[in-house]
Amino acid sequence: MSNLTIDADRLWSSLMETARFGGTPDGGIRRLTLTEEDRQVRDWLRAQCEALGCTLTVDALGNMFATRPGTDPDALPIAMGSHLDTQPTGGKFDGVLGVLAGLEVLRTLDAAGYVTRRPLMLVNWTNEEGSRFSPAMICSGAYAGAFTVEDVLARPDAQGVRFGAALEGIGYAGAAPVGSVKFGEMFELHIEQGPVLEHEETTIGIVTGVQGMRWYDLVVEGVAAHAGTTPMKLRRDALATAAELILAFRRIALAHDGVATVGEIGVVHASRNVVPGEVRLTLDLRHPETAALEAMERAVEAELARPELAGTPVRLTRTWDSPPVVFDAGCVAAVAAGAAAAGYSAREIVSGAGHDSVYAARVVPTSMIFVPCKDGLSHNPAESATPADCAAGAQTLLNAVLARADRAEPE
Amino acid sequence: MSNLTIDADRLWSSLMETARFGGTPDGGIRRLTLTEEDRQVRDWLRAQCEALGCTLTVDALGNMFATRPGTDPDALPIAMGSHLDTQPTGGKFDGVLGVLAGLEVLRTLDAAGYVTRRPLMLVNWTNEEGSRFSPAMICSGAYAGAFTVEDVLARPDAQGVRFGAALEGIGYAGAAPVGSVKFGEMFELHIEQGPVLEHEETTIGIVTGVQGMRWYDLVVEGVAAHAGTTPMKLRRDALATAAELILAFRRIALAHDGVATVGEIGVVHASRNVVPGEVRLTLDLRHPETAALEAMERAVEAELARPELAGTPVRLTRTWDSPPVVFDAGCVAAVAAGAAAAGYSAREIVSGAGHDSVYAARVVPTSMIFVPCKDGLSHNPAESATPADCAAGAQTLLNAVLARADRAEPE
Repeated sequence: MSNLTIDADRLWSSLMETARFGGTPDGGIRRLTLTEEDRQVRDWLRAQCEALGCTLTVDALGNMFATRPGTDPDALPIAMGSHLDTQPTGGKFDGVLGVLAGLEVLRTLDAAGYVTRRPLMLVNWTNEEGSRFSPAMICSGAYAGAFTVEDVLARPDAQGVRFGAALEGIGYAGAAPVGSVKFGEMFELHIEQGPVLEHEETTIGIVTGVQGMRWYDLVVEGVAAHAGTTPMKLRRDALATAAELILAFRRIALAHDGVATVGEIGVVHASRNVVPGEVRLTLDLRHPETAALEAMERAVEAELARPELAGTPVRLTRTWDSPPVVFDAGCVAAVAAGAAAAGYSAREIVSGAGHDSVYAARVVPTSMIFVPCKDGLSHNPAESATPADCAAGAQTLLNAVLARADRAEPE
Repeated sequence: MSNLTIDADRLWSSLMETARFGGTPDGGIRRLTLTEEDRQVRDWLRAQCEALGCTLTVDALGNMFATRPGTDPDALPIAMGSHLDTQPTGGKFDGVLGVLAGLEVLRTLDAAGYVTRRPLMLVNWTNEEGSRFSPAMICSGAYAGAFTVEDVLARPDAQGVRFGAALEGIGYAGAAPVGSVKFGEMFELHIEQGPVLEHEETTIGIVTGVQGMRWYDLVVEGVAAHAGTTPMKLRRDALATAAELILAFRRIALAHDGVATVGEIGVVHASRNVVPGEVRLTLDLRHPETAALEAMERAVEAELARPELAGTPVRLTRTWDSPPVVFDAGCVAAVAAGAAAAGYSAREIVSGAGHDSVYAARVVPTSMIFVPCKDGLSHNPAESATPADCAAGAQTLLNAVLARADRAEPE
C-alpha cells in the first residue's frame, strides 16, 4: 500500500463549494435530480474531471463516468462514486461526499503523478434519491438491468414532466447505452444516516451488506358514519383498525429485531365529525436476513387475518421487494485493510438505507464505507459530518481503491 | 286538537321536486350553501310560501322566515323549519325534510282554510352543514347571539370566497337585522342520522335534547428519522403515539358511555421511508351530560400525560364546546302528544348530532322530532327515509304546532 494521503482541506473546500448549487438559507441543499441546480453541479464535476485528464462518458440516463487510465489497457476500472442529487430538504453530505471523495482520490493521485495498474473511474448516478422521479436508485438499477431505459425515461415527476424531457433539458442525455460503460469493482463512501458509529465513537463503518426492504400499501375498509349518532359498539372505524395495525407492526419489528415503519396515513373523505370509512397507509419492513423478512411479512399477514378485524377488512399490496445484499468479501476486506492502514477505529455494519451500491453489487464486486453523521440525521438541512470524518472516509477509500487497482492478476 | 291530516303524496312530491336542485346521478344532492343550486331551491321555497299568502323576510345572513298570520296580531309565531343546504355528498332528507314538512303544514292549513290563533313561521337557516363555510350552524348561531354577523360575513370558503360575497352573489343578503325576526317557539323535524329508531322499529323520536360536544386539535411531536437506519428502540415515532391515543380515546368513550371520534389525521412532511416526526389529528367527544363530558376530557388529558409518551409530547387544543341542550318540557310534551294522537310508536331520544335547534333553544322554547333513516346513514347519497315515515314526521309536526299555536294564554 502506498503512502499517499488525501488533502482533507481540499476535500472540505469542494464540499462547501458545490453546496452552493441549490444551497438553501438554512445550510441545506435542495438539488432535485435533472434540475438547473443538478446541471450546475454536473458541469462543475465534468470540468474538474477533465482538468485531471479524465475521459467523461455520459449514458442515456445521465449517469456520468469519468475514467483515469491505468498502465494495463485491458483491465476493467475500479469505480468509486455515489450521487449528487439531494432530497427536497437535503443536506451537504448524503451522496455528495461519495462523489467528491472519489474526486479527491483522483486529485491526490494526479498531484503525486501516481498511475495505477487498472484504470480508475468516478461515477455520479442519476436520481438516487427518487424524490423527483420515483423510485429511488432507478438509474443504477437500470445500469444493473433492474429497470428498462424506456421505463425510466417515461416516468413523470409530480408536475407531469417526464424523466426523458428533464434529462434533455439539462443537456445530460448521453450517447452511451446504459450498462455499456463497464467497471470491475465498485466502492461507495457515504454517511451512515444512522446513529451507530457516532454512538460507538467509531470512525469507519465497514459495510458488509444492505438489509432487505419490502414496501407495502394497505387499505382499511370500514364504514363511514356520523360521529355523534353512531354508538361506539356499532362502529366499523377504519382508523381505529389502522391504529391497532400500527402498534402491531411495531411489536412485529421488535420481536424479529428488524424495523417497521408506517410513514404515510390518510383518511379518505376525512372530516372531523365522521367516523373514518376508509384509511390508506404504507408499511416499510427491513431486515438484513431474507428469512427474517419473510417471517415479518407472515406475521403482518397473520395480524390482518385476526377475526377481530373482520368488520374492517384490510387489503395488503407489496409494491417493492429489495432483497438483502451481501457485499463481496474481497471488497469488504479491502475497506477493512484501508481503514486499519490509516489507524482508524472501524467496525462492520449492515446498511439500513438503500444505496446505488445495492444495484452495483448485482453486476460487480462491491463494498461501501460509512462515516458517522451527527445524531444519525440525513435528508435534513441539519445533516452534518465533521471534516475529520469526511477525510478519514476519503483516505479509507483511497487505500482500498489503490489496493484493488494495483493488486496482482488474476483479477 | 284538530283532525287535519297532511298530504303524504304532496310532501313526497316536494321532496323529489326539490331534489333536482343540485341532484347528483347517484341519487344524492350536492347543494352547498350560497351556491347557484342553493339560490334555485330558495327561489322555489319563496314562490311556494308567497303562493300561500305568507310574508317572506330575509335577514342579513340569508336566513329565510315565511310568516302565516294568526288571529292574534300580538302573539309571537310558532316556528318550524330546518335547512336546505347539503353536504358535498349529501342526501335528499337531511335538513330538507324539516323545511318541506313545515311547508306541508302550511299547505294543509291553507287547503283547509284553518287559521291558528298565533301566527306560524317557516324558517330556512343558512349554512347548517358548515361544509362550505366553517363551522356548522353558524347562522342560527348568529341569530342566537353566539357569533357576530361581521364574523360570519368575513368567513372564507376553501377557495377564499367570503360568505358575504357569496350571499350577495345569489341575491339573498336580506335587509332584516339578524335576530330581529322574532318567534315564540321552534319545532324542527329531522331524520335521526343514527340507527336507534330503525333498530327499535319506532316511528317517532321525541327529542328531549342534544348531547354536548367538544372538538379538539392535537399535535404529536416526535423526531423524524430514517426508516432504515433508526432502531425501533431509539425512535420517537409521532404516529405510533397517535395510534396509542386513538385506541385510548375509544376506551375512554366506552368507559363513559359516550362517543369519541378521530376523524382526521395527517403526518407532516410524510414519506413512506421516514419515521413520522409530527402528526396532527382531531378529536370529537360527545355525551348528553356535562359532568360526563368533563370526565372524558380529564381522562384524555391524563392519557396525554402518561410518562410513556414523554418522548413524543402532545399538545391538545379545545376548538369548540357545545354544551348539552335540554329542550323545553312543554315543547317536548307537545311532540309526544302529537305522535300519540296520530297513533305512532314513539320514544324519547337525545340527539347525537348538532342541529340549528341547539341555537334556537338558547333563545326560545324548542323541541325536535326525529324519524328513522335507513341504516342510520346520512351525509351520503344513499341517505334514505320512507314516504310513510316522512309523512308521520310531518303529521306529528302539524299536531304539535297546532296544539301550541292554538293553546290558551298565557304564553
